This record gives sequence, C-alpha cells and structure tokens, in this order.
Amino acid sequence: MTGMATASPRADIGDSEFDRATAVAPRAGEAGVYDAELSAGWTIGSAVNGGYLLALLGRALSGSLPHRDPLTVTAHYLTASRPGPAVVRAQTVRAGRTMSSGQASLFQTDDKGREVERIRVIAGYCDLAALPDGVRTSAKPPRMPSYEDCLGSADAPAEGQVGGSTAILERLDLRLDPATVGWAVGAPSGLGRVRGWLGLADGRDHDPLSLLLAVDALPPTSFDLGLKGWTPTLELTVHVRARPVPGPLRVALSTRNLAGGLLEEDCEIWDGADRLVAQSRQLARAPRG
Amino acid sequence: MTGMATASPRADIGDSEFDRATAVAPRAGEAGVYDAELSAGWTIGSAVNGGYLLALLGRALSGSLPHRDPLTVTAHYLTASRPGPAVVRAQTVRAGRTMSSGQASLFQTDDKGREVERIRVIAGYCDLAALPDGVRTSAKPPRMPSYEDCLGSADAPAEGQVGGSTAILERLDLRLDPATVGWAVGAPSGLGRVRGWLGLADGRDHDPLSLLLAVDALPPTSFDLGLKGWTPTLELTVHVRARPVPGPLRVALSTRNLAGGLLEEDCEIWDGADRLVAQSRQLARAPRG
Repeated sequence: MTGMATASPRADIGDSEFDRATAVAPRAGEAGVYDAELSAGWTIGSAVNGGYLLALLGRALSGSLPHRDPLTVTAHYLTASRPGPAVVRAQTVRAGRTMSSGQASLFQTDDKGREVERIRVIAGYCDLAALPDGVRTSAKPPRMPSYEDCLGSADAPAEGQVGGSTAILERLDLRLDPATVGWAVGAPSGLGRVRGWLGLADGRDHDPLSLLLAVDALPPTSFDLGLKGWTPTLELTVHVRARPVPGPLRVALSTRNLAGGLLEEDCEIWDGADRLVAQSRQLARAPRG
Repeated sequence: MTGMATASPRADIGDSEFDRATAVAPRAGEAGVYDAELSAGWTIGSAVNGGYLLALLGRALSGSLPHRDPLTVTAHYLTASRPGPAVVRAQTVRAGRTMSSGQASLFQTDDKGREVERIRVIAGYCDLAALPDGVRTSAKPPRMPSYEDCLGSADAPAEGQVGGSTAILERLDLRLDPATVGWAVGAPSGLGRVRGWLGLADGRDHDPLSLLLAVDALPPTSFDLGLKGWTPTLELTVHVRARPVPGPLRVALSTRNLAGGLLEEDCEIWDGADRLVAQSRQLARAPRG
C-alpha cells in the first residue's frame, strides 16, 4: 500500500476519492439541507473515522456560508455514525466581512426510523488566501525521519489494536515515525506521541477540507501509552491556519494529561513549506485496556 | 489590591461577587431561558471580559443540563457584549448517562431594539467528582516564583496596554511572574508567554465555573510578543479536567503561532495539588500594534 501514492495516477482536488466520499448534495427547496452517503471506505474498527465525518460537515458549511475555508471548527460527537445515508442541516449564525460563523448537524435514521443526531459542529469560516502575510512562529516542525525512512501500514499493522475494518488505511498514504510505532510490536514508548507523514493514497494534494480529515487520521496516542482498544472522540476543535502546499504533511500527535478516564490529544500539522497549517485538540475517552 | 485576598473576609462559593455577577434567573414558563445582567465590574478596556461571559453562559448550562460540571466548552464570540441586560437561551442537545451535551446563546438588545446574538456556546457537561481516579500526566506545572514573589496589578499596571476600564483587576487576585511582565515597562520578552497566580479578590475559592473565567483572565500573550492593543477572542475551547482544590491557581499562557493576523493562545491551569485542572486554547485576532 505504501507504494500506491507513487504508482497510482494523481487525483486532482475536487475529483478524488476523498472528494467523492465527502460529497454533499443540496436538497432542492430546502436551504442549508444536504444529503450525503457515509462511505464504508473510511471506517476503522467498527467506526466511521471522525476526521472523515468532520471533512464532510466542513464541506457542507463551505457550501452554505459566505466564506469557503474552515478557520476554526468544533465538533461534538454525540452518537456513533454508521456507513449509509445521512443528512446535514447547516445554518449561518453570522455573516461578517472577513469571517462568517455557522453551525451544522449530521443526522442518520436509526433502526426504528427515528432521526438521530450524530455530530454537531460550530465553526468560523474565512478566506485563508485573504489573510495578511506576516508569520511569527516559535513552534518548530516535528523532528522525524524522511518520508522514505518512515513505516507504511504494511510494516506496522493497526488492526491488532482495535479489530475490525481497516478500510481507511487503504485510502491514506500514511508513514509513521518508527520511534512512535513500538505499540505495534508490543513495545509502546509510554510518551503519548505519534508522528507521521500523511498523504492521500490516490495522490490528491491536501487542501483546507482534507486537513479536517488529517487531524484525526493517525493512530491514537493512547496506543503509544500502552492502551489498546477504541478511543472515542467526545469533542474536537481544529484551527486551520493556512492552505497547505502540495505534498505530504507532517502530523504530530501528543497527549500530556490522561486523567479521569479522559485524555486530550493535540495535533499539529506542518506542510512542505514548514508552515504550521493546522492545530487541533480533541478530548477523548481513554480505552480501559 | 494584592493584599485584599488576605485582608478581606473570605467569600464562599455561591455567595461571592463572582457568583452574583454571573447569576442567571430562569424565566418563568420559558424552559431554558435565563435573564442576566452583564456587570460593568468585569470589564477591561471597552470590553466585557470573555472569561466572565463564558462563566455566565456556563452557569446557565449547569442549571439546564442533567449534569452540573462543564467538561468541554467552546464559545464563538460573535459580537461585542456590553454591560447591561442580557438573555441566555439554552437547549439540551443530548442527555447521556455520564455526560450531557448542550448549547446556549447570549443575546442583547441593540440601540435599535433588535436582539443581537453575542456568543454561541456548545458544551459537554459531566459530574467531575464521578470520573475515575487514575491520573497519568506527563505535563509539568509551570516553573514560576512563589505567590509572594510575583507581581500584583499595582506593580505592573495593565491599563497602559489597552486603555479604558480596569474594573476586572479589582475583582481578581492576580500576581504575575516577573519574567513575563516586561511588556509593562516596554521590554516584552518576545516569547509569547504570560504566567501568574490567580485567585478571586474576595477570597472565594475556585470551582469548575470560575475556571471558565480563569482561562481568559490574564493579560494576553500578545503583550509579551510586543504588541499593544486589543486581542479579541474569536473562539475559545476549554476542557475542565478536575475540580480545583482551594487556594490560588497557577495559570500559564503561551502562543506559538502568530500568522495571518491571528494567534492561538494556549492556557494551562494547575491547582495547589499539582493537578492540571483545565486546558484551553483560543483563536484571537492579533493587535496591529
């Protein structure tokens, strides 16, 4: 799988598997209502990946708000999403000159025919290209081996950690820093760090929407803390700070406070121009294992 | 002012100036609707403090949700609040066994008699005392001088930085690490760090609600970056991870990425038992100065 990005034809932004799987169709005559199909291709274990869901909601807001780029997005994961039909209802909260605020919810119909809310999102959107140029960043990109010296999914299988689907791994070009994959061979570092290079398997470059996927696409830091099993996200907030340049991203996760059965997971994403393009933090339930 | 905490009678949680200023009155016959009065006592410059407003909204959610303690709260600051009457409208999004999710908005009436939304909040609440005991924290409390060796507001006046009201400073027992107040004498460190001890001037101890105030109560990191003027919060997310023990808190702010006219401000709050009781991050507009 790790060779796919090079071998496969290069998909364009707007016409890639990621774009098709996060597509939302405006419902005629119902402003802010979008039909969608949650793809089984972006599942891990028994769950639809939270970053994929965030990108789908982000796309609906991008279509409904006056500004197109996510700047700050917060999602509350209320109930477990399943592959299949879904509806997004989006509303504009405030439309400003340089920024607009919106809210969106993802719904699915349960076995008894009732509509259940899966995720609620509140967000601020802007035009990232219109932000002023100045950068004063004291943060440093993560130190990690080159893309070639990192390990693909074939080298460090994640399926042993959660069981079930690994479909999402076929769609990511994910190469992890060997220093942070000891958990895959029963030797977690205990530091709560996971780092890697992240592209999309079909070669599509990243954009602000795929950054919403990227902040929740790596194995969880709980694995590196020696915990096995599912780490469900309760809340995730991401700030998209710049449009990434083409090429794989460096993604660094860290957890510093596991307490009360909960942990925070911080994520930084750097692009090939050494720009900090996204920061996120999620609050998740720690596995018992 | 810095001596007030010792000299004044000790106010109890529930019967302090903070509690009265964040009080919300349920409106008879209208579930989830609360009347409030935004106090001029918690203003800085020309603005009502964002942490104070968050605590007021947090109190309304605490009263309307099945769980009483804020666990994760995200606020989008839409328009500038003013001292005076306000209305909070809260709704339960989902009521679970160990956690409930809610949403609330703060409204005020403008000069033309129109209701304007000031802030929208989405939150997860729980019972902090019911969380499991285990703690595995690799984060370390901030290194800073003792409370006695830090500087009170009388020593390091903030009014030169923004102009206007300093009313909130009379209600806080704030003592800043001398290493992070160079900006007050024209010598900011440039590191983007502000640290200090934070109590309430009337001696009220902290609780989860006052932590919502505490995450936005110190001078902004932009001062330490050498920037003067107002740093308006666009979005703030706080995770309350434990009930604080009595006594002043250590609050540490840092900014690592000022770019595109925006900056993130991370906040960690530690209590006297060396427990990381809250983590927050806000996205703010950087001053031009």
